[in-house]
Amino acid sequence: MTKIKIKKTKKSRIKETDFDHLEFGEQFSDHMFITEYGDGTWNDPRIIPFGKLSFLPSLTVLHYGQAVFEGLKAYLTANGGVNLFRADKNHERLNMSCERLCIPPVPLDLFMEALKKLVAIDRAWIPNKRGNSLYIRPFIFATDDYIGVRVSKTYAFIIFTSPVGAYYKEGLNPVKLITSGGYSRAVIGGLGEAKTPANYAASLLPAEEAKKQGFTQVLWLDAIEKKYIEEVGTMNIMFLINDVLITPPLEGSILGGITRDTVLTLASHWGVKIEERRISIEEVIEKAKSGALQEVFGTGTAAVISPVGWIQHMEEMVTINKGGIGHFSQRLYDEITGIQYGEKPDIFGWCYQV
Amino acid sequence: MTKIKIKKTKKSRIKETDFDHLEFGEQFSDHMFITEYGDGTWNDPRIIPFGKLSFLPSLTVLHYGQAVFEGLKAYLTANGGVNLFRADKNHERLNMSCERLCIPPVPLDLFMEALKKLVAIDRAWIPNKRGNSLYIRPFIFATDDYIGVRVSKTYAFIIFTSPVGAYYKEGLNPVKLITSGGYSRAVIGGLGEAKTPANYAASLLPAEEAKKQGFTQVLWLDAIEKKYIEEVGTMNIMFLINDVLITPPLEGSILGGITRDTVLTLASHWGVKIEERRISIEEVIEKAKSGALQEVFGTGTAAVISPVGWIQHMEEMVTINKGGIGHFSQRLYDEITGIQYGEKPDIFGWCYQV
Repeated sequence: MTKIKIKKTKKSRIKETDFDHLEFGEQFSDHMFITEYGDGTWNDPRIIPFGKLSFLPSLTVLHYGQAVFEGLKAYLTANGGVNLFRADKNHERLNMSCERLCIPPVPLDLFMEALKKLVAIDRAWIPNKRGNSLYIRPFIFATDDYIGVRVSKTYAFIIFTSPVGAYYKEGLNPVKLITSGGYSRAVIGGLGEAKTPANYAASLLPAEEAKKQGFTQVLWLDAIEKKYIEEVGTMNIMFLINDVLITPPLEGSILGGITRDTVLTLASHWGVKIEERRISIEEVIEKAKSGALQEVFGTGTAAVISPVGWIQHMEEMVTINKGGIGHFSQRLYDEITGIQYGEKPDIFGWCYQV
Repeated sequence: MTKIKIKKTKKSRIKETDFDHLEFGEQFSDHMFITEYGDGTWNDPRIIPFGKLSFLPSLTVLHYGQAVFEGLKAYLTANGGVNLFRADKNHERLNMSCERLCIPPVPLDLFMEALKKLVAIDRAWIPNKRGNSLYIRPFIFATDDYIGVRVSKTYAFIIFTSPVGAYYKEGLNPVKLITSGGYSRAVIGGLGEAKTPANYAASLLPAEEAKKQGFTQVLWLDAIEKKYIEEVGTMNIMFLINDVLITPPLEGSILGGITRDTVLTLASHWGVKIEERRISIEEVIEKAKSGALQEVFGTGTAAVISPVGWIQHMEEMVTINKGGIGHFSQRLYDEITGIQYGEKPDIFGWCYQV
């Protein structure tokens, strides 16, 4: 097992943190994990106080974006334990992203040990309110001091955590989406299936324009035909049509979400018919009009299940399930969060206890 | 005029720098320019010693890639002056990139004043050998300490400089390109026409694979049909066919190079017929076989003109101009570098004297 050195903070910030009003991604726990890559290996893995890092402005990642990241959560369970949800899948995806970005992989034991130790040390930072959790952000970035375009020789792998409130304070809340118009998030052969800054950079302007028009997020169509539905940028998307659960296949331009996999596994276990296939925006509109479209929802770590109430495409707006929360969406949300908070049996062995 | 404060270094590193063996992007001059954006304006513009910056690991740009950059050069001229080449175009493109990345624009006077003052202060760092120059890297990145996906509220705009040798030490040297195969650099509606880290991140793995096969760089085909030629990632590309200069049009997925514009302006001035139009890889191969293809070359700030001697596409390899340097490529290189080094008349007013 990897030996991780620990240096604890002398001055915790926890008492200054308002756990009754947690926003996403604004508050950071007392410690972070860090290890640097050089000479073919990850060196000196350690947990230290969360704090500033020093870099020259020639830091490669600031210029050429060679970086990958992950997102997962730790939950305080009903019996006072701590659950890490499907962390092995985050490790697997992190290394897939690394491969596309020419970043050296992280060994599984180092990843898991770092996660568990870090969460254990900052256990007091895990909010105890149902729906709240400790968001965990592992990420790797290129650290060469060099501005030629080439693969970096050195990297930093850091994990820090952030106590977060429920994504929707009032519970599940259907969102309004608008299709991507002339914009593209990613294309086959590009970076779309990697969890890397580039995809998020591409989504900022379209998301701003969508918000100005009153929409929650952008529903990305494929970049080639502007026809097939891909994802929502921070979530995958699923459609319940005539009791069949349909979601776009992982063909290279969309991210393979872990909540996506969780939902497909559960739905299949429940006997729901699943189709991972291309689905066009025209089909969605048509099935909405005919009444065959029962539910639409996004799946992601932050919101778990996010019901979609409205989709705008060109001049057309369709309303799904009268803008309400579908039974299937609610059942998925209850089951997944039930497993995460240790209230329901973890029959798939998804939880790692810290 | 913007007031830029100056704090000079007490310890120059210039004597430790080997100006006879300059590599690209490895050595940095004594000073840098910096200004931070917040509350709707760029604050406290100043020139300070080149050195480390401090950031929390939650720095937005490390996670979501909200950043843009530029590249240009300062040249020591024959009469002992210093030329900045077409810096106004870099400013224009920087602000275009900013718009796509939701980054606030930089005022022209601030940009020009910062460039001129910085180059003047580190004038001793401009190499005096013909072919050498001072590479200048302006860049802007998001600095919020926040990991929600949203447009940052704060930014840093930095300029630093790096003395560089001639791109090809032995002079012009034809390169070997291979088409992009299954990979994509950018797609219409994405970030391809912005100078932003994402495009370079996407190119790293394909470039590594190309190098392993003995090629210098990747010749990117369009992401949709995998048919039309786009660019070379660090250069635009041009074809001389039957005395007509052909280059792909700026339709959204390729970068509008400043050297590209310089070449088109000069060629047009010389009476060469120009076509900015889509050109397929099949057409290039066919014209190479028929003998109509006279020259192929890349255009970019680093190499100025980079003759292409060989292009591999699928199983086919075409040799251009017997792998040698074409007359037109040589004439362009001589003319452009002649203007940059103040040896030829600057009839288009491209040079800013520092």
